[in-house]
Amino acid sequence: MTTTGSTVNATATAAVWSGVEAGFTVDTLPLPALRRGEVLVRTELATICGSDLHTINGDRPTPLPTVLGHEAIGHVVATGGDVTAADGQPVRQGDRITWTIGTACGTCRRCRRGISQKCLSVRKYGHEAIDDHWKLNGGFGTHVHLVAGTGVVKVPDQLPATVATPANCATATVTCAARRTELDADDVVVVLGCGMLGLTAVAYARDRGCSTVIASDVDPSRRELAALFGATAVVEPQDLAAITSEYGADVVFELSGNSRAVQSAFGVVDLGGRIALVGSVSPAPEISFEPSGFVKNLTTVVGCHNYRVDDLVEAVAFLGRTPAQALFADLIPAPYALADIVQAVTTAGTSSAPRIAVQFP
Amino acid sequence: MTTTGSTVNATATAAVWSGVEAGFTVDTLPLPALRRGEVLVRTELATICGSDLHTINGDRPTPLPTVLGHEAIGHVVATGGDVTAADGQPVRQGDRITWTIGTACGTCRRCRRGISQKCLSVRKYGHEAIDDHWKLNGGFGTHVHLVAGTGVVKVPDQLPATVATPANCATATVTCAARRTELDADDVVVVLGCGMLGLTAVAYARDRGCSTVIASDVDPSRRELAALFGATAVVEPQDLAAITSEYGADVVFELSGNSRAVQSAFGVVDLGGRIALVGSVSPAPEISFEPSGFVKNLTTVVGCHNYRVDDLVEAVAFLGRTPAQALFADLIPAPYALADIVQAVTTAGTSSAPRIAVQFP
Repeated sequence: MTTTGSTVNATATAAVWSGVEAGFTVDTLPLPALRRGEVLVRTELATICGSDLHTINGDRPTPLPTVLGHEAIGHVVATGGDVTAADGQPVRQGDRITWTIGTACGTCRRCRRGISQKCLSVRKYGHEAIDDHWKLNGGFGTHVHLVAGTGVVKVPDQLPATVATPANCATATVTCAARRTELDADDVVVVLGCGMLGLTAVAYARDRGCSTVIASDVDPSRRELAALFGATAVVEPQDLAAITSEYGADVVFELSGNSRAVQSAFGVVDLGGRIALVGSVSPAPEISFEPSGFVKNLTTVVGCHNYRVDDLVEAVAFLGRTPAQALFADLIPAPYALADIVQAVTTAGTSSAPRIAVQFP
Repeated sequence: MTTTGSTVNATATAAVWSGVEAGFTVDTLPLPALRRGEVLVRTELATICGSDLHTINGDRPTPLPTVLGHEAIGHVVATGGDVTAADGQPVRQGDRITWTIGTACGTCRRCRRGISQKCLSVRKYGHEAIDDHWKLNGGFGTHVHLVAGTGVVKVPDQLPATVATPANCATATVTCAARRTELDADDVVVVLGCGMLGLTAVAYARDRGCSTVIASDVDPSRRELAALFGATAVVEPQDLAAITSEYGADVVFELSGNSRAVQSAFGVVDLGGRIALVGSVSPAPEISFEPSGFVKNLTTVVGCHNYRVDDLVEAVAFLGRTPAQALFADLIPAPYALADIVQAVTTAGTSSAPRIAVQFP
């Protein structure tokens, strides 16, 4: 363990979740003895992602007990030997960082094939049971213990924490979908669903130079937000076909997970267009399409789940340059303390805010 | 018109098709006065594609009267000024060539976006009405008149005509599908449908280094052919799921156009796998999928129709190097004379041979 001279607290505090019935307990946990390639992080801010809520509501099984939370940033306390960040530079004590939500071995068949987010030995933050060595394995704690294979990306000091924290889930998922659909400045873009990912997709498409970005959501307040984030047109789902008949979408980002929205993507995509299916992470009604129309339209549909470390690098770079920084910051109301995790989660489940944060002073 | 000194016959003979009722007449037509960028070809061999049969059967409307046929090769008789082949070299009298089935302007929105097969001003061989200038616009004639924007690819003299002729439809469609699915030597490949395209896909996947190529067809004789062409396993469609449960397909080429086969592709594709839908060119029953499985599986589905000139370059190169040359030649029985076009078409509609050819001595 490279402690690089600083005094390290001997313990951490984390919100340990033991299931739907047992809920959260805020526990004191020992700090790890870092192994080679590992990093100990002092958490700065964590946000509650929709998938955390799915788990807490019992809709997504997870090994127990666990520390939930995967959207987080923090400062490096110590490293286990030399650790290299995604920019090729050493990870040093005090560095402000974010990290991939899952590990990647870099050598398995899937890593070699460019789908490192599905590494055959992936371990995901906020998704694993606490064990003897890996206790601080989620964002809802004062410290996070990064294990070997985690992609580490430095976060500029001047980037507000509320802007940077969703980078390693919402933002990187969007940049991954944009990479997989080969988003180009010349593209007409349609964004279906204007929650955290949808607003990010709108701002990212504008950042990439797209001059026509049409956003759709059932919720009028979300449509208003989408317009603030740069959507050039906002539309109720039932009016989507009318507005896109004028444009035809080169890229459709489906971020709602609603099967009707997924189905609508096939109706609005232009010849040669690409549909990124992203929002569907829970079983949903099937959608259908007629094959010859799909073939002659040269349609491409890609399923996007999680992302690679290069997508996270792009996500942080985007958040650092977007004129929508203040808008992103405004999406997150005053953060909760860790002791109030239950209230924070309750608020996240009922609030119209896309993200609720937990702060670590 | 650059006649480069040779004597050019004043007329051509072509099988003009005037519709389902009127059928074919073998007519004498004048040779064109070539405009800039045009090429006059003396046809060597043309093959009857399944889509020609669709038209002849009345299943695909086409402007009339027309010269059908788009799979063809021939020798250059003359060019309208300087014409450049896809290899950057001049097209010269006597060159043995094939050509893209459609023109591409190179400047429209679609051409600029890499889908030149859907050029906004595309004109397709074997698909257009005869007009005052463009009469010899299909392969079923002694001459073919190539208009500007046609991609010209040279064909090695030693490549048998029976092998080279399908290059500009069947073969290039397969190489396009392989490009769009980013076929890699490490991929497990499944080929659904073992007609001309399926056999080509099997041989092409082996050519590209794939060591597991599973081919499926309802027809046992086609499965036998697929094994000869290099399939490492052949299987009846109902047994596909069992055999692929062992492998999981990285790339599925759906070449049958049967909706049940299209549906089965979704069941056999591995995590991160790519499905090329190619065979569905006529309206067919819808297929369906569950979105969250698609998303978490990182599935990609691409609709492939026709191809770009670079795909045709790769198709000719593949046919020139494949050890399956003799097998490809064997797929085509003794060719018919143009005068016997009706018999040739009848045979094509009933024969088990994937292609019937028309020869021009």
